[in-house]
Amino acid sequence: MGLVVQKYGGSSVADAEGIKRVAKRIVEAKKNGNQVVVVVSAMGDTTDELIDLAKEVSPVQTGREFDMLLTAGERISMALLAMAIKSLGHEAQSFTGSQAGLITDSAHNKARIIDVTPGRIQTSVDEGNIAIVAGFQGVSQDSKDITTLGRGGSDTTAVALAAALNADVCEIYTDVDGVFTADPRVVKKARKIDWISFEDMLELASSGSKVLLHRCVEYARRYNIPIHVRSSFSGLQGTWVSSEPPGGHEGHGENVPGAQAALKSGQSKKNGQGEEESMEQAIISGVAHDTSEAKITVVGVPDKPGEAAVIFRAIADAEVNIDMVVQNVSAASTGLTDISFTLPKSEGRKAIAALEKAQGAIGFDSLRYDDQIAKISLVGAGMKTNPGVTATFFEALSQAEVNIELISTSEIRISVVTREDDVNESVRAVHSAFGLDSESDEAVVYGGTGR
Amino acid sequence: MGLVVQKYGGSSVADAEGIKRVAKRIVEAKKNGNQVVVVVSAMGDTTDELIDLAKEVSPVQTGREFDMLLTAGERISMALLAMAIKSLGHEAQSFTGSQAGLITDSAHNKARIIDVTPGRIQTSVDEGNIAIVAGFQGVSQDSKDITTLGRGGSDTTAVALAAALNADVCEIYTDVDGVFTADPRVVKKARKIDWISFEDMLELASSGSKVLLHRCVEYARRYNIPIHVRSSFSGLQGTWVSSEPPGGHEGHGENVPGAQAALKSGQSKKNGQGEEESMEQAIISGVAHDTSEAKITVVGVPDKPGEAAVIFRAIADAEVNIDMVVQNVSAASTGLTDISFTLPKSEGRKAIAALEKAQGAIGFDSLRYDDQIAKISLVGAGMKTNPGVTATFFEALSQAEVNIELISTSEIRISVVTREDDVNESVRAVHSAFGLDSESDEAVVYGGTGR
Repeated sequence: MGLVVQKYGGSSVADAEGIKRVAKRIVEAKKNGNQVVVVVSAMGDTTDELIDLAKEVSPVQTGREFDMLLTAGERISMALLAMAIKSLGHEAQSFTGSQAGLITDSAHNKARIIDVTPGRIQTSVDEGNIAIVAGFQGVSQDSKDITTLGRGGSDTTAVALAAALNADVCEIYTDVDGVFTADPRVVKKARKIDWISFEDMLELASSGSKVLLHRCVEYARRYNIPIHVRSSFSGLQGTWVSSEPPGGHEGHGENVPGAQAALKSGQSKKNGQGEEESMEQAIISGVAHDTSEAKITVVGVPDKPGEAAVIFRAIADAEVNIDMVVQNVSAASTGLTDISFTLPKSEGRKAIAALEKAQGAIGFDSLRYDDQIAKISLVGAGMKTNPGVTATFFEALSQAEVNIELISTSEIRISVVTREDDVNESVRAVHSAFGLDSESDEAVVYGGTGR
Repeated sequence: MGLVVQKYGGSSVADAEGIKRVAKRIVEAKKNGNQVVVVVSAMGDTTDELIDLAKEVSPVQTGREFDMLLTAGERISMALLAMAIKSLGHEAQSFTGSQAGLITDSAHNKARIIDVTPGRIQTSVDEGNIAIVAGFQGVSQDSKDITTLGRGGSDTTAVALAAALNADVCEIYTDVDGVFTADPRVVKKARKIDWISFEDMLELASSGSKVLLHRCVEYARRYNIPIHVRSSFSGLQGTWVSSEPPGGHEGHGENVPGAQAALKSGQSKKNGQGEEESMEQAIISGVAHDTSEAKITVVGVPDKPGEAAVIFRAIADAEVNIDMVVQNVSAASTGLTDISFTLPKSEGRKAIAALEKAQGAIGFDSLRYDDQIAKISLVGAGMKTNPGVTATFFEALSQAEVNIELISTSEIRISVVTREDDVNESVRAVHSAFGLDSESDEAVVYGGTGR
């Protein structure tokens, strides 16, 4: 008997029909001999409705009371789900984040998990119950106040519980079939990835892939919890995210029929490699893109030690997160250089204000702000040992006549910044160049859940 | 500085406008120098909407999970109320029943309060916050599960907190101006009662008055917490429910301007008594009626010791609550008698089934079930020392040509059962006979809140 943690997003439990469908799926996992712990998000639009109400009564929607308000959403969905399971003849108990032992810091609206004490959950499943836990929420260690975990919170709840309960797998149910080699809305021939390593998934997540958030994958990697991302609407195998492919690790997937089979139809074969290599990671996992960033260029910065430090201290003090940073070679004639960086569009105004305030200290000429950019990233641990990858990547963009504005690389990722208008063409060109295109081009639904 | 507990029902916080209006009223109480603890119900129709959802996913809506579901309603209203107060520039914190220390037994959907440990609430108000507490809910002592208190639960939460916090007053805000001498929908000349004793209020509540439930008044009487029932829509003084009139007790009402003045325009004067007696309780507090009961007559019961015991043991075993009980004098010729009792219509089927099952043991002839009845009650501690009250009561009904089917009396109450069709006429006749009619006949809104 194994222990499975399942997480269902808001779109899976959007209405009574959805709740009943999910209840059946949960009962199936229980019937297969597993102990089952379920983490559930708020129903469909509940959170938005609560936010609208908050806006009506108060201009400020943050802090302790906002967390108290939002957590009502999961309370509703988890109780209904437990009732639906009971009506199928199985025992179920729902638990708030606090009852489930999700202990957090006191940072309301974006709390971090600092401990998980799942004693009540363990007791509940040991007694034969299916335990339903509210995602997205916890209780602060210091003040005992209700907290919420912010974006991607429910996925993180699921992984954290899976780690604390020593679960065999954390299944993340969503409204798409898994993680794809590219966004299927952009690349019709994108393929579902059968298995991907934590490291590649982390790079995809920070490069714009929205199926799993970086935070959740990072947590799973740290505690080595295999994640299975799959659709709550279909019965299909989804994408396994783990340290090793399911077939290569006896411990994984033994409660999950089909896990071992997953790779047989997997991507490595389609990459032109032999069947005997199917247990190795593919060279390239996928292509991600991100149009949520803007670019700031600080023009005419004196090319002397300490200038970049002054600039990025000003940005950091304004609590702006930056992504890529590039400094041009300075022109010998002037001794001046340009420094460019990308950041979320939503923080552009804050960053510009901080830089303008620091203009005297930095001594630059001017600022250029550009929010018509896109970032395209190629991710795959295999590129470490394949020197041709970078060349192929740039050739593909060149043939598509896409101009590259910034370049940044890590060991297992290459990212470029292009014009926003070029994004779809760029992603398709790169996807095709690395042999990721599927043979069929069936339509797939692709999207992410809010939390 | 005093401590005031205020309770707002669902109709007072039905929408964002209502929440903002209530927030202003709360802030006013705080500005008057009071520590303020607020108990709030779920917004308007929230509870009904949650029940509808529950019906969609499960045929059974009871127990642990149903409580978990329903308590989401107060979580929403209390968080919004706290946010609205904060936007007015005052500090507020919301607390669940569990956080507020409402400890109950484990009887889901109808839990009883067994302890109140309001340490967090006391700390919160001592720190200068307005504390907002979810009504209707608590946490079970044994299982630490979320419980709900059932009908009238929010009022009971407020009184229980007021007792535990040693509050000066518990203000119950509702959508009517207070407790009236009769239901104003039936008696246009019904008058608002300025003050009523706990004992009279208990009798009115158990005789059909819906403004305050028996359970809440009983709790207040036991801990001697003055209740002030008033409208959240008007600024008017409402009805004080306490052991002594506010003016006669230095401790009461000193934080509540107008309390001493309340009785000056009070009812005793209008009863034809002198001004100097205004501090004494009026002879009659009011007339209540109740059309929610049915009458069962057990016909042809052998008139021998133990028969009634067998009948009411059968009823009790079926967990049916009964109200009035009357046994006729037996006919000498047959040695048989009839026993009649009233009970909630909703329990009629259960009672009949229990009696039919016990027919052999009891040995009666037949059963008669009648749900076309009404109960009219006259309540007032003054009737103890006024021998003419009973006579006036029956004369009034006689003049209205109302036939009396059952009679039951307590020290401070007379109740009769009549045809349901006669109820309005009966109430008006009695109300008028005891000089309760007001001089004006302005229209007033009258109703009760669900919980």
